[in-house]
Amino acid sequence: MAPSRCIRVHERDNVAIVVDPEGARSGAEFSGGLTAREHIPQSHKIAISTIERGSPVLRYGQIIGRANRAIPAGSWVREEMLDLPAAPALEQLALATNVPAPLPPLEGRTFQGFRNADGSVGTKNILGITTTVQCVAPTVDYAVRRLKTEVLPRYPNVDDIVAITHTYGCGIAIEAPGAAIPIRTLKHISLHPNVAGQPLVVSLGCEKLQPQRLFANALPVLEDSNLIRLQDQRGFAETVAALMRAAERQLEFLNRRERRMCPASELVVGLQCGGSDAFSGVTCNPAVGYAADLLVRAGATVLFSEVTEVRDAVHLLTPRAVNERVALDLIREMRWYDDYLAKGQADRSANPTPGNKRGGLANVVEKALGSIAKAGSTALMAVAGHGERVTAKGLVFAATPASDFICGTQQLASMNLHIFTTGEGSPYGLALVPVVKVSSRTALAEKWPDLIDIDAGRVATGDCTLEEAGREIFEFVLDVASGRKKTWADHWGLHNALAPFNPGPVT
Amino acid sequence: MAPSRCIRVHERDNVAIVVDPEGARSGAEFSGGLTAREHIPQSHKIAISTIERGSPVLRYGQIIGRANRAIPAGSWVREEMLDLPAAPALEQLALATNVPAPLPPLEGRTFQGFRNADGSVGTKNILGITTTVQCVAPTVDYAVRRLKTEVLPRYPNVDDIVAITHTYGCGIAIEAPGAAIPIRTLKHISLHPNVAGQPLVVSLGCEKLQPQRLFANALPVLEDSNLIRLQDQRGFAETVAALMRAAERQLEFLNRRERRMCPASELVVGLQCGGSDAFSGVTCNPAVGYAADLLVRAGATVLFSEVTEVRDAVHLLTPRAVNERVALDLIREMRWYDDYLAKGQADRSANPTPGNKRGGLANVVEKALGSIAKAGSTALMAVAGHGERVTAKGLVFAATPASDFICGTQQLASMNLHIFTTGEGSPYGLALVPVVKVSSRTALAEKWPDLIDIDAGRVATGDCTLEEAGREIFEFVLDVASGRKKTWADHWGLHNALAPFNPGPVT
Repeated sequence: MAPSRCIRVHERDNVAIVVDPEGARSGAEFSGGLTAREHIPQSHKIAISTIERGSPVLRYGQIIGRANRAIPAGSWVREEMLDLPAAPALEQLALATNVPAPLPPLEGRTFQGFRNADGSVGTKNILGITTTVQCVAPTVDYAVRRLKTEVLPRYPNVDDIVAITHTYGCGIAIEAPGAAIPIRTLKHISLHPNVAGQPLVVSLGCEKLQPQRLFANALPVLEDSNLIRLQDQRGFAETVAALMRAAERQLEFLNRRERRMCPASELVVGLQCGGSDAFSGVTCNPAVGYAADLLVRAGATVLFSEVTEVRDAVHLLTPRAVNERVALDLIREMRWYDDYLAKGQADRSANPTPGNKRGGLANVVEKALGSIAKAGSTALMAVAGHGERVTAKGLVFAATPASDFICGTQQLASMNLHIFTTGEGSPYGLALVPVVKVSSRTALAEKWPDLIDIDAGRVATGDCTLEEAGREIFEFVLDVASGRKKTWADHWGLHNALAPFNPGPVT
Repeated sequence: MAPSRCIRVHERDNVAIVVDPEGARSGAEFSGGLTAREHIPQSHKIAISTIERGSPVLRYGQIIGRANRAIPAGSWVREEMLDLPAAPALEQLALATNVPAPLPPLEGRTFQGFRNADGSVGTKNILGITTTVQCVAPTVDYAVRRLKTEVLPRYPNVDDIVAITHTYGCGIAIEAPGAAIPIRTLKHISLHPNVAGQPLVVSLGCEKLQPQRLFANALPVLEDSNLIRLQDQRGFAETVAALMRAAERQLEFLNRRERRMCPASELVVGLQCGGSDAFSGVTCNPAVGYAADLLVRAGATVLFSEVTEVRDAVHLLTPRAVNERVALDLIREMRWYDDYLAKGQADRSANPTPGNKRGGLANVVEKALGSIAKAGSTALMAVAGHGERVTAKGLVFAATPASDFICGTQQLASMNLHIFTTGEGSPYGLALVPVVKVSSRTALAEKWPDLIDIDAGRVATGDCTLEEAGREIFEFVLDVASGRKKTWADHWGLHNALAPFNPGPVT
C-alpha cells in the first residue's frame, strides 16, 4: 500500500496537512516514519512531532496558535486544541526593513484591450448604466432586459449591458464619516475602464446621493445626454423609451471601438480567496502568487485585499513595504478595521466560516498566512483605502472587507480582471470584469468542471509545480483579458450583485 | 382672478402650504386677506401671521422649529429660517394617558386569499427560493429565469417565482449583537405567507449563515427535498437541473391551492412613505390613515414604521399606546436607534433628502409630523423590534429604518400587502407583496399615470374628502389582496431587491 501523503510548508512546521482525498485512516503511515493515530480528514492537520501543552503550533513557519493540551505526534490537530494568539501589535512592526529586490522585468507581454480616453484600458466593452439610488433599479433592469433582447444584437462589438445597481443612495447619513467609502466606491465603479469610463447615469431626483455628489471631482462625466432623472419623465413607458434612446446613443459610440494591442502593464488584477481550505495556502494561493509576480514583472498592478485575512500576517508584510510611508499606510488600514470591528463588538476572530473550519483551517491566523500567499514575493508598492482607485503599478494592498461579494465590489473600484481562489467552491462572478476561478483541490475541479477555470490542486498531488500552475494562470489571464478565452462565470452569466461596503449608519 | 389657495392643518398653525401648482406669485392674495410677499413654490410654507425671532413655527399644531429671524406675514418660510428643535426627551413622555376608544367594528369585510398551514393568509401564491448567502444568488437567478419561461406557464395558479436574494450570509460577524436583526428578518421573509411559508432553500455550504441557523426555531421547514447545497452538487448544469426538479415539486403543490374567502382581519398591511413632500402630511398620509382606521376596524393588522420619521412625533404616540408596556416598547425602539445613529456619528437630522426639502419639508420634525398621519387615529396595540414578525391585531409600530428599500424589506417580515405614499414619486415595488402607490399631489398622478395607483392629491384641490380617498384606498387594498386588481408595480414587474437592515459589522 502506498504511503499516505501530507504537506509540510516550512521546515520549522510541526504540523502538515493530509493530502489523500479520503483522508488518512488510523494507522496510516507517511514517509519519514510518521503514523496517523486516528482518522484525519483531507486538508486537516497532523502533528509531525509531539507538541507539548503551551507550545507553539507552527505552520508556514509561523505560530498559528498554542497547544492547550499535549498533542502526540500523529494526532489530528483540531481547532479546539489551539488557543488563538493575539494579533500582531501594530506599534511594533518592522517598517520596510526587508524590501524585496525587483525581479527581472518581463518584456513584451501584451493583451488585446479597449483603450479609453482617460488612458485606462478595458478588458470588456460594456454599456454601464449607473444608478444613484436603489429606487430606480427595477426600472433600469426593465430597460436593460429589453435592450439586451431588442437592441444589443445590432451592436456586435459591445459585450454586454450592465446595470450598476446597489442598495445605497438614500436613507443614509450622507454626512457621517463612513459615507465617503460607498460613495467613492460607486464613483470609481461607475467610471470603470470596462464601461469606457462613460456610463449612462440614472437618478430618481429626490435621493440623498445626487449625481453631482456621486461624481464630485468628475463632473464632466455628467452631460444632459447621459443623465436621466426619473422624476423628470412622464410615466413609466416614456421613461423606458428615454432610457433606451440614451442607451442606443452610447451603444453606437461603444460599437465603434475595437480591441488593440496593449502592454500587460495596463492590467489591474484583483486577487481574492473565498471558501478557503487548508490547501488554499499551499496550492491555489501561492500559484496565484507566482502569477502575481509575473504580472508585476510585466509592469501590471496586482491588488490583494481582505483586511481581516491580512491582519494576522501583517508582520510579514510591513517589512516588504517599499518604504516606511507605505508600511504605515498598511498599518493605518489595519487599525481602522480593528476599530470598526470593535465598535460592532466583534474582532478578526469572527472571520473563519464553518466551511473554512471543515476545510481544515483552525483559525484566522492560519487562514491569513495562507491568504497572503496570493501576494507573491515582490515589494509592496502602495496601499489604497476602501474604495479608492489604485494608480500605482506593482503589488498594492487595496483595503476591503473579506466578504467575497463585498471584496469583489470594492476591488472593482480599480481592477479590470479578477482572480478568485477557492477551496470549498463558489459559483461567484462579476458582470463588469472577467472572474478567473482557481481551485485549491483537484477534487473540486473534477466535481465542478463547468465552474472552475484552473485546477491548482495538481500542485498538491505533484502533477505540476507551483511555477507551472502560476504560468498557466498568467497566460490564461492574458487570454481572458484579450477576449480570446472566456471564464466559466461569463459563459453562464453568473454575476453577483454589487455590495458596496457601507460602514456608516442608515437613517 | 381666483384667490391663491393654501392649506393650514391646525387652528394653532402660523404657517400654511401653498396649493397652486405654479406656486403663489409675489402679491398673490389668499382668502382671509393674506398676501404673498414673494414667489412661494407649491407645497412650500407661507407665514400666515408675523412670526417674531425666537418664536415657534407651528404646523400640525406642533412646533416644527423656532424662527431664527423675524418672518413677516406672507413670507416664504424656508428651511434656513428655522432652528431645529431638540427631539422629544424620551424620559418625560406620557405613557398611555390618552388611549383612543375602539372605533365601531367593520363587520363582514373579506378578501380572496390563500390560506396557509400555519394559519397565515397569502395575497399571492408564489414559489419562494430562499438563499442563505449572496454567493448562490446568480445560480438561483439563472434557474429562476429558466423556470419562469419553461416551467411556470404549466402552473397557472402560481403567480410568480421569486428568488429571495440579499447581500447577507457570509463575511459577517455572526455572533455580534447586531446580527440577530438581519437573520430574523430573512427567516421571517423566507416563511412569508405569500410563499405558503414553505420556501425552497439554497445554501452554498461553507457560509456563515447555515440553513440550520437561519431557520432556528423553525427547523421543520428544512427537509431533504427542499434544501439544496451547491457544494453537494456536481457542477453548474447539474445544479440547475436539481434546482428545477425541486422547484417543480413545489410548483405542483402550490398549483393545487386556490383563493378562498378570508376575513379582512387576516391582512397585515405595511405603511410607508417615500419621497415625501409637504402635501404628504395633508393628503396621502392622512388618507392612508383613514384607510388604516378602516382596516383596524375590520380586525386587520396595520404596521407603521421608520424610526427616524417617528422620533420627533413620539410624544404624540406614547399617549395613544394601549398600555404603559407598549409605550415603553416604543420608547425602547427610539432609544435603540438614537444610540445606533450616535455610534455612526449621525442623528435623526440626517433623514430629510434633497427631494423632501425641494418638496417644502423644512426638517425632520415637519417630516415626522406628516409621516405619522399614516397611523390614523386608533390605539397603538403593540411594538415590534427590527425584523420581528408581528402577531398582534390593530395598529402596530414595527421598527425599521426609514430608507424606502430597507423599510420595505423589514416590513416583509410581517406584511402581506404594502401601501406606499409618495410626493416626489418613486417607481418602487416588491416581488413578494403587492405595493399600492398613493400620490400626495394630482400633478404627480397625472405625470405618472402608469405608476401611481391612487391620487390623494384630490384632497388638496377639494375634489374629494380625506374620508373618500381613505375609503377608496381601503377598497383597492381588498381588491388587490384578492387578485381582482393589479398594482402598477406588479403590472410592470417593478420589484426592488431586498435590503435587510444589518447594524452589525462585516468581516
